[in-house]
Amino acid sequence: MIVLGGNQYGKAEIRLVRVDRSDSGSHTVRDLSVSVALSGALEATHLTGDNSAVLTTDAQKNTVYAFAAEYGVAEIEEFGLLLARHFVSSQPAISMARVSLEEYEWERIADTGHSFARSGREVRTSIATFDGEQSWVVSGLRDLVVLNSAGSEFWGFARDRYTTLAQTNDRILATAVNAQWRYAEPAAWDASYRTARDLLLTAFAQTHSYSLQQTLYAMGKRVLEGLPSVAEIRLSLPNKHHFEVDMSPYGLENKREVFYAADRPYGLIEGTILRDDAPPAGSAVWGGAW
Amino acid sequence: MIVLGGNQYGKAEIRLVRVDRSDSGSHTVRDLSVSVALSGALEATHLTGDNSAVLTTDAQKNTVYAFAAEYGVAEIEEFGLLLARHFVSSQPAISMARVSLEEYEWERIADTGHSFARSGREVRTSIATFDGEQSWVVSGLRDLVVLNSAGSEFWGFARDRYTTLAQTNDRILATAVNAQWRYAEPAAWDASYRTARDLLLTAFAQTHSYSLQQTLYAMGKRVLEGLPSVAEIRLSLPNKHHFEVDMSPYGLENKREVFYAADRPYGLIEGTILRDDAPPAGSAVWGGAW
Amino acid sequence: MIVLGGNQYGKAEIRLVRVDRSDSGSHTVRDLSVSVALSGALEATHLTGDNSAVLTTDAQKNTVYAFAAEYGVAEIEEFGLLLARHFVSSQPAISMARVSLEEYEWERIADTGHSFARSGREVRTSIATFDGEQSWVVSGLRDLVVLNSAGSEFWGFARDRYTTLAQTNDRILATAVNAQWRYAEPAAWDASYRTARDLLLTAFAQTHSYSLQQTLYAMGKRVLEGLPSVAEIRLSLPNKHHFEVDMSPYGLENKREVFYAADRPYGLIEGTILRDDAPPAGSAVWGGAW
Amino acid sequence: MIVLGGNQYGKAEIRLVRVDRSDSGSHTVRDLSVSVALSGALEATHLTGDNSAVLTTDAQKNTVYAFAAEYGVAEIEEFGLLLARHFVSSQPAISMARVSLEEYEWERIADTGHSFARSGREVRTSIATFDGEQSWVVSGLRDLVVLNSAGSEFWGFARDRYTTLAQTNDRILATAVNAQWRYAEPAAWDASYRTARDLLLTAFAQTHSYSLQQTLYAMGKRVLEGLPSVAEIRLSLPNKHHFEVDMSPYGLENKREVFYAADRPYGLIEGTILRDDAPPAGSAVWGGAW
Repeated sequence: MIVLGGNQYGKAEIRLVRVDRSDSGSHTVRDLSVSVALSGALEATHLTGDNSAVLTTDAQKNTVYAFAAEYGVAEIEEFGLLLARHFVSSQPAISMARVSLEEYEWERIADTGHSFARSGREVRTSIATFDGEQSWVVSGLRDLVVLNSAGSEFWGFARDRYTTLAQTNDRILATAVNAQWRYAEPAAWDASYRTARDLLLTAFAQTHSYSLQQTLYAMGKRVLEGLPSVAEIRLSLPNKHHFEVDMSPYGLENKREVFYAADRPYGLIEGTILRDDAPPAGSAVWGGAW
Repeated sequence: MIVLGGNQYGKAEIRLVRVDRSDSGSHTVRDLSVSVALSGALEATHLTGDNSAVLTTDAQKNTVYAFAAEYGVAEIEEFGLLLARHFVSSQPAISMARVSLEEYEWERIADTGHSFARSGREVRTSIATFDGEQSWVVSGLRDLVVLNSAGSEFWGFARDRYTTLAQTNDRILATAVNAQWRYAEPAAWDASYRTARDLLLTAFAQTHSYSLQQTLYAMGKRVLEGLPSVAEIRLSLPNKHHFEVDMSPYGLENKREVFYAADRPYGLIEGTILRDDAPPAGSAVWGGAW
Repeated sequence: MIVLGGNQYGKAEIRLVRVDRSDSGSHTVRDLSVSVALSGALEATHLTGDNSAVLTTDAQKNTVYAFAAEYGVAEIEEFGLLLARHFVSSQPAISMARVSLEEYEWERIADTGHSFARSGREVRTSIATFDGEQSWVVSGLRDLVVLNSAGSEFWGFARDRYTTLAQTNDRILATAVNAQWRYAEPAAWDASYRTARDLLLTAFAQTHSYSLQQTLYAMGKRVLEGLPSVAEIRLSLPNKHHFEVDMSPYGLENKREVFYAADRPYGLIEGTILRDDAPPAGSAVWGGAW
Repeated sequence: MIVLGGNQYGKAEIRLVRVDRSDSGSHTVRDLSVSVALSGALEATHLTGDNSAVLTTDAQKNTVYAFAAEYGVAEIEEFGLLLARHFVSSQPAISMARVSLEEYEWERIADTGHSFARSGREVRTSIATFDGEQSWVVSGLRDLVVLNSAGSEFWGFARDRYTTLAQTNDRILATAVNAQWRYAEPAAWDASYRTARDLLLTAFAQTHSYSLQQTLYAMGKRVLEGLPSVAEIRLSLPNKHHFEVDMSPYGLENKREVFYAADRPYGLIEGTILRDDAPPAGSAVWGGAW
């Protein structure tokens, strides 16, 4: 027999800019993309088109804007939890809500108090899940692009018929950090984010690297050591290859100064670092395929 | 204690174009993006930078090209399985291999036998997994953009304080079909793909829709009914909103003819349809977040 | 002294889907992105912020939707001209209007008369310009991706110190055709488009090529020969390199069957083909940098 | 008769990362995308496929890397001029060379001297042109995203049948600055860039705005006032609409705090500001359509 399995629905990529004017001389801007996914007793709409249990995705969007007005947006984790709890507690059919948030950072310009430039650095992320009883928060960042021009080697690897790569004890190591960490308990969200970001950067910079895997592990370990409230971290690190250009055909020497930054293909290194006594992940969700 | 958890690594987005010249009067082109992900006994490289168990991602790339030369690329499922089996069987440290493939279709132009235009239709996908004993194949497609200009209603939904959407018994229904189906057994891969694609399209066209959820379920059910080798299908359908433009402010009537195609936000409807006696999914992998 | 030079403003990327329901059994869909750019006596708004001559870009958007309701959308060239004439003739300050249009093709699916799939092939384009007296139409297409797996050579080129490329008498030739042609007079727009597209494809397929420049010229010449109303055509052809993979390091022969499709860098070949008695281009505009 | 008109060719998007290790304790990284376009006596390759005058685009790519090794990359303007002069002076057939450059900024992290994070701010651009005698430099930036949460009004505009926009004396003004300025003479390129960027930002922040056109003019004027070597500046400013969400349907008041950041359509405001005694633009080229 053919049956309905797991399912969810919601409004995705609700673009919300919240201006805090409480200090008229110095505004604050928070710039988010919010996605809602709800699940529960939704068989009827799938099987017969009976929508009586379906809160429209349009209403979900309205709720995001309304809550931004009523409660403000202080920290994305808190805002996500507030929304997730609302949908489950107010909709009888909904037993689980997931709210995924991205935040884009703005920096002040000039001295006007109301002028900003988008920083363009990494995107901050968070996914809040609530099942009626328990809640989970997975926070992170993506597209933090970093590069070490020294302190990276790669040699001693396995060899097979198809292995042609030269060994090196001095290569460029570059990646776009995509990290997500699961909180075991509520935390000072903004402060924890800043700490995690700093730890990722310093671990990347300070690790003398024999493989991107080693750097990945060092980065994750550093975050767990520095943030007791984090139980587990997952990193997905594309190896953004920088190939040394061979100039011998035209009689020049490349003193490891000139590199071709390749697009595709790229290595992709993914790993989890966790505490051996980490509480179970339960219904926590991780964004992306990993 | 802090420990290493799940991890994998490989080369991603290896762009491979394979020309079959065996019929010199009429070439065949297959155009792929191949991504490899390997896992196994890889603690050493993470913890100490000892790479002796690491087959380089460069060698993985070479293998993809070499196998395309040695064995050709007939069906992406078969090519993916061939590669997955190779990595596990030839590398002692590797216990699981996943090979993800995308295929871009080309159509013949003119009568030359060697001229082609990229069709630009959906992307065909497949993920082959092998763990040393068993293999799994999940195939699918993404970005098949479809639209019904009649036969779609949406009313009778739940209402709360934030619900403002008008009910309608005639709306445009449009989506970009992202579907992935898990095979319970080997199949005639190319033929099954064409059948699944046809079934998705006809189910979308022929279902009088009261919700996108209902259409999703009908599409998935149709594939399972038509393909006995498929155990389960997952669909992720963005509701590509087409809003009827209100022309009353300038004294015109919009006879449901003029629509604004919105980008964001969008509804996102995701669901699984499966046989109640489907074999367990085991180590099968699904691309994307869903 | 610092002065205001050339300027224009308007609403860009107005997404319009027009459903023709006049035959209730068989709808027609036209799917456009429309951009308006107006210029004229607009010094005041730049110098003092006096907006009395500024038709809002919001009203421009409304006009596009209103005209789609009132007049339908038969051919994008005609629709563009209609809009361009309207803005100049109705707004005293506006002396020149440019309307740029993109069209995305849909194909019928099943036999319902109201179900469609986006074809995903090339994007059709047109730019209509009106200056109060005269009008110009430049039409074209972009992202028509084509490939010849035979019939392409490249040798006998200039050599300098930095030249290392091997000569070849059998390479893959692939490009994404971006073409724009200027009409000297009104034409049967839809029919001319189809003819131009066919001529571009057949010229690409049938030209034995010694350089992409030669193919470019052959393609342009063919369009001018086939369409008397076209005065001039510009082509911008990225050379989408397909590099033959060298398998000698692992003891395999690549019989020109396995290729790496590179992203960047790419060759970019751009050229104009025109009639020597072509009327002057006047205020005709070409999209893109070329 | 059908003839060949204007044409050019070259290698596009050559990705070059140049590491300066001259201070071993503190490396410097410059990260560029370089595109070359050459024109001249190139009829033969178009008309007959005779490539004897064609310097391969592959050799152009090699030249970019070789020059980066031989001469370093101090300022992109200088590097572009060096390359442009080389191609014209060394290739008999080439009478004009244009070298377009993009630069991506990196910031130091930690205290290692060799670790960097990509800043993600605007992209710096430059186009150098050389015709055998004279050279031109147009420099600029793109994607500098800025927002004013106060100090922006829009009212008193023209009204027609299709005008429905409400007047406002307090709106969010946001744009992605795309600016290009033409130098009348050589300048201190890096310092001029920083000055131009600062002037654009402060003019945006400090201008009480009655229209985006007025802000555009103020930004351009400020750059010309501050940089005597700049003859002309062109700005292309998308009006990134932030719509105040209407919450009256659910009984809430939006105190101009909650906004929907729209994607499309968007206003697009483009203008030139120049000195009335600016030398003629000659063969200077501007990137993009404007």
